[in-house]
Amino acid sequence: MKNVKLTIEYDGTNYHGWQAQSNAKTVQGTIEKAIHGLTGEKIAITGSSRTDQGVHAYGQVANFFTNSNIPPERFSYALNRMLPDDIVIKKSEEVSMDFHARYCSKGKKYRYLIYNNSFPSAIYRNRAYHISHRLDLEKMNRAIEFFKGTHDFSAFRATGSSSKTSVRTIFDVSLTSKEDLICFEVSGDGFLYNMVRIMVGTIVDVGMGRIEAEDIPDIIESLDRRRAGRTAPPQGLYLVEVYY
Amino acid sequence: MKNVKLTIEYDGTNYHGWQAQSNAKTVQGTIEKAIHGLTGEKIAITGSSRTDQGVHAYGQVANFFTNSNIPPERFSYALNRMLPDDIVIKKSEEVSMDFHARYCSKGKKYRYLIYNNSFPSAIYRNRAYHISHRLDLEKMNRAIEFFKGTHDFSAFRATGSSSKTSVRTIFDVSLTSKEDLICFEVSGDGFLYNMVRIMVGTIVDVGMGRIEAEDIPDIIESLDRRRAGRTAPPQGLYLVEVYY
Repeated sequence: MKNVKLTIEYDGTNYHGWQAQSNAKTVQGTIEKAIHGLTGEKIAITGSSRTDQGVHAYGQVANFFTNSNIPPERFSYALNRMLPDDIVIKKSEEVSMDFHARYCSKGKKYRYLIYNNSFPSAIYRNRAYHISHRLDLEKMNRAIEFFKGTHDFSAFRATGSSSKTSVRTIFDVSLTSKEDLICFEVSGDGFLYNMVRIMVGTIVDVGMGRIEAEDIPDIIESLDRRRAGRTAPPQGLYLVEVYY
Repeated sequence: MKNVKLTIEYDGTNYHGWQAQSNAKTVQGTIEKAIHGLTGEKIAITGSSRTDQGVHAYGQVANFFTNSNIPPERFSYALNRMLPDDIVIKKSEEVSMDFHARYCSKGKKYRYLIYNNSFPSAIYRNRAYHISHRLDLEKMNRAIEFFKGTHDFSAFRATGSSSKTSVRTIFDVSLTSKEDLICFEVSGDGFLYNMVRIMVGTIVDVGMGRIEAEDIPDIIESLDRRRAGRTAPPQGLYLVEVYY
């Protein structure tokens, strides 16, 4: 038996998220079906992160155990021939038997795109969050710096999520813009449920002047979800990379 | 009667091109239907360019004559409420009665995206031309410079196209790259049918080492379509701006 690690890009627009469901098309379910078609094995794959409906990935990671004699590095080519073109396996490789895509992750990098124009975008409609109010990038840039470091991010966690601890370390943040697109990137050792989308909702409030950049430390320390901004919509979010 | 100019963004993926057809969904036809729904008028709109199936636009321009008493600058808001979200009217404005979106154009700017990675992209599958062979950007950058200026572009024109003259002036070209995306931009006083896509097919041949950058002047002078590269596919092409 071999343990195979997959690096996966997908356009989440037409899927009900990552996690397999019996009654809806999901990314995980679609890949498991392709593996079944290829190897005859009914296996479950383990993803590093259960991305929500509409969220995209450049580098989701998953692993699965197989008895197939297909060389692990050939799975990418064989699966891509069976998968729809909105899911692409960018790499497949054999890993040690104790590798687990979720538990072995040392961190992740996410990207979030905001389209800032008075009209929505036809081309980015499923790829970015449309904000018609002109955002103040200078303020937003000051705000994101406060996320860096180790904090209890309870104020940036969806209510009802079940992680044991809400302390996370943010390694780096950046905010860049080109024409009407604003790109927020954040990497850290882990993220609570909806944490990146609540961060984005909060910095959008800063960019609109509803919250001061310098209030972010207070909001973090409050541990109060109601103090942070709304949850930004899923279609602007991209899982860029998973670190091991 | 008023003459109204529209500036239009669209994702061309789900349309059979710009030009109205009786038996297929097109961008022009969809906008004309929305205007009919709004004003009750059965009118034809005139586009600056008949983009092909799968081609996108950030700034297509069209005009139409109307007797409606809707203020011209309000058409954008009213039409966007009726249009599907892959077509957005970014601006509507009254123009003089002799304005014609096609004949009055003084030039256009196009963008073409190439995705250069050994695997195709799920996210850019309808947005870029996938080339798996690693391209030599330095050579491609030398090649594009030869397009600048006034030339007979017969070698870069689809056979069977009917323009009276094939002499065009290219104002500017640029080639930039970020991660796996290569972005070619070209502006000029006009473009022959498929001219940008044949330019791209040719510089891709340069990037792959099939054609030398320094052979571009000879290819242009030959006036021979067979000397230039293949026609790059439509989904990488974007009409960015029309100049008046």
